[in-house]
Amino acid sequence: MANDKKLVEEITSMEEDFAQWYTDVVKKADLMGYSSVKGCMIFKPAGYALWENIQHELDRRFKETGVENVYMPMFIPESLLEREKEHVEGFAPEVAWVTHGGLNPLQERLCVRPTSETLFCDFYKDEIRSYRDLPKLYNQWCSVVRWEKETRPFLRSREFLWQEGHTAHATAEEAQERTILMLKLYADFCEEFLAIPVIMGRKTDKEKFAGAEATYTIEALMHDGKALQSGTSHNFGDGFAKAFGIQYADKDNRLKYVYQTSWGLTTRLIGALIMVHGDNSGLVLPPAVAPVQAVVIPVMQRKEGVLEKAAEVEEMLRNAGVRVKTDDSDKSPGWKYAEQEMRGIPLRVELGPRDIEQGQAVVVRRDTGEKTTVALDELESAVPKLLDTIQKEMLERARAHRDAHTKDAVTYEEFQDLIGRQVGFVRAMWCGDQACEDKIKEDTAATSRCMPMEQEKISDVCVCCQRPAKKLVVWGKAY
Amino acid sequence: MANDKKLVEEITSMEEDFAQWYTDVVKKADLMGYSSVKGCMIFKPAGYALWENIQHELDRRFKETGVENVYMPMFIPESLLEREKEHVEGFAPEVAWVTHGGLNPLQERLCVRPTSETLFCDFYKDEIRSYRDLPKLYNQWCSVVRWEKETRPFLRSREFLWQEGHTAHATAEEAQERTILMLKLYADFCEEFLAIPVIMGRKTDKEKFAGAEATYTIEALMHDGKALQSGTSHNFGDGFAKAFGIQYADKDNRLKYVYQTSWGLTTRLIGALIMVHGDNSGLVLPPAVAPVQAVVIPVMQRKEGVLEKAAEVEEMLRNAGVRVKTDDSDKSPGWKYAEQEMRGIPLRVELGPRDIEQGQAVVVRRDTGEKTTVALDELESAVPKLLDTIQKEMLERARAHRDAHTKDAVTYEEFQDLIGRQVGFVRAMWCGDQACEDKIKEDTAATSRCMPMEQEKISDVCVCCQRPAKKLVVWGKAY
Repeated sequence: MANDKKLVEEITSMEEDFAQWYTDVVKKADLMGYSSVKGCMIFKPAGYALWENIQHELDRRFKETGVENVYMPMFIPESLLEREKEHVEGFAPEVAWVTHGGLNPLQERLCVRPTSETLFCDFYKDEIRSYRDLPKLYNQWCSVVRWEKETRPFLRSREFLWQEGHTAHATAEEAQERTILMLKLYADFCEEFLAIPVIMGRKTDKEKFAGAEATYTIEALMHDGKALQSGTSHNFGDGFAKAFGIQYADKDNRLKYVYQTSWGLTTRLIGALIMVHGDNSGLVLPPAVAPVQAVVIPVMQRKEGVLEKAAEVEEMLRNAGVRVKTDDSDKSPGWKYAEQEMRGIPLRVELGPRDIEQGQAVVVRRDTGEKTTVALDELESAVPKLLDTIQKEMLERARAHRDAHTKDAVTYEEFQDLIGRQVGFVRAMWCGDQACEDKIKEDTAATSRCMPMEQEKISDVCVCCQRPAKKLVVWGKAY
Repeated sequence: MANDKKLVEEITSMEEDFAQWYTDVVKKADLMGYSSVKGCMIFKPAGYALWENIQHELDRRFKETGVENVYMPMFIPESLLEREKEHVEGFAPEVAWVTHGGLNPLQERLCVRPTSETLFCDFYKDEIRSYRDLPKLYNQWCSVVRWEKETRPFLRSREFLWQEGHTAHATAEEAQERTILMLKLYADFCEEFLAIPVIMGRKTDKEKFAGAEATYTIEALMHDGKALQSGTSHNFGDGFAKAFGIQYADKDNRLKYVYQTSWGLTTRLIGALIMVHGDNSGLVLPPAVAPVQAVVIPVMQRKEGVLEKAAEVEEMLRNAGVRVKTDDSDKSPGWKYAEQEMRGIPLRVELGPRDIEQGQAVVVRRDTGEKTTVALDELESAVPKLLDTIQKEMLERARAHRDAHTKDAVTYEEFQDLIGRQVGFVRAMWCGDQACEDKIKEDTAATSRCMPMEQEKISDVCVCCQRPAKKLVVWGKAY
């Protein structure tokens, strides 16, 4: 059992150095690799499979709301990027520029898309003629590029994978409805599929998307007390429509501007999975998103009948709808256990000669370490049930952790103390003035995460300036 | 019925101008749009849905052979692209170069991947240590960029979508096995899923991939008698391994170079679907790949009970596993029929008050125009059966067309005549000398499509130079 200790000892404990723990886990759980392109990462099979599962489930949910997938070019001509003023100011400083095609310089520079509002608008301008063409509910799955200075695997890299939805509507009300519909879809997806509870809210003007009228966000709390913006949904009003001239003829043949939304969710969710559920033995994956949900580990596998029985159990579990594999490599059982833990596989099924004699197997939960002895002929019902239980309890634990690490601050001293100790989300009242947001950021490094949808009044005055409060804001240090 | 005529009249007949017919169909079937980025296209929902179905089915088949998906960066540093000599010569003239990140010039130019051999090799160099790490069977789904001068929707564009598989093996034999396995997988996929018969063969040295030891191809015949290279599978031998230093320790701890393959299939398959199956009424889709397999078209839909019955039929067909929708828009039935035909939906189910009275519907095949009257309660068994029949017969028809347009040439006069009339594939013997390939291309504009796997001897001498023949080659004008 020396080997398994070694594997675990290779990761730093999260209490000692959370950032290093994170880096160690992404490496040791074999999720990613570094590439020769500075700031760009390689998604290895275990990492990409998480994204495939996220993509599959989200795509299904999108389509249920009438969304269709399209694919736009990855390049944006400079003149097109510049069409909407706030948008270009937000993105131009961080895009990659293509200046040569083959051996010749281009007449106009092209940027590699940092996001595709401008391309969708340019497309909608020609595509939308009449009210019959509305709404347009398009989405694309692609990679985007933002030339970040500091990068971290999954959380911030120069290229990342995401989906970006872009819709066009006849009225402002419909656009607002879609904005909130997608925000809620994101929140439900995170809770139900990733077992990550989120706070839904609206961004302050300081934090909103470049060119949006309103940005809504889902914010999750990581194990170290820092926040992670996990998805955003923007209402553009008719701002882009006016900049790009996207008009439709209504039923009375009057020309009107469309109202637009966009919404996106990225591979940083994989970072959230790691930092919400992981522990000092590595990754812990909720069963719904786990590429492998159970691994059968034969013990003393050279004894007659062990591998055969393991194959039977694997087959039985697969037929019961479980994503399962058997680890029949020549590593020691202890090493295999440690690997299953490091990779976050929700269940392992230990099966040795004595178990087989007694017609049973030992089932071990990754999230709690709990061991149960299960009769072999009950595995096919017990394992799916256990996976459901794990999924449910992982969400409950994450929610309990989040709630225990969400504190209210009335005075600025309380606020500074809570943020200083990085306890988690801090709820505090705000006057609505950006000067206070700036001061808070300067004093504490915390940012306003959102103005939660469910507003309460926990004090009458702004936590910073003591003037009358307008909004409850959730604050925190963020990734 | 004036309207449906109009829709069809908007496309040029294929006999009159095949290229224009193609362009008209991709536009009128709503598959793509032009973008502001010269040479880059927009995949609209109907076009992208075809790619999603192709992707889903191919991915399933890949995974059955042990392939895992990964994702590599979209950028390649210039020095990395230059590592393998033939490869860089093949691709450098047609790549897009990123020279600036944000506001600063880059220290080293990055090209947007035209293909990712160099990135995979750079990755494998660190990832592969011992024979236990082999084989590596990785694939990625992504977009690539090649700065083409002339472009055509789906067939040739500056950015296109594809999959690229990259494998590493311990022995040359295993690499060759994988190369052929994937070639056959592609061929089966094209025949079974897209109803497109293909010729499998090896490329001549002149036509092989830059850096490959051997390139294999599947070649399909379009309706106008031109060939379309529809997928390729390359055996690299240990050439890239030597250029990148990819070595593993074998069981006796000796260092050896790995043997590699790569294989790719692109969105040009959508072009093949159009040009193999389409007709003068528009697209004709094989049921397996069709996003919508049957459309229910209510006739006199304002009459009581018609829309209700249409909804019932839709539900019944959906439960029978058919991808179905109802067109209950306010367009005329004739217009709806023409749209169903233009978009290539395999079946339409016409349902009017009189049909309902008689407990029946009229089912019309897109591929043959054949009408059948089917009792409503038999639709759920009849429609899936009919879809299977269509799939099978479309392949048979495409194969019969291909065979009727494959001719043998013994003399150079015959050869020039057949190519000149663009009859289709021309089979002729070749001496193996590139000078003859060059001369044939110069004289006739035909290229060697492949040396088919099933070799025959149709004459003793080269069709061009009359020296002794070495190989049977399939020639043709190509897209």
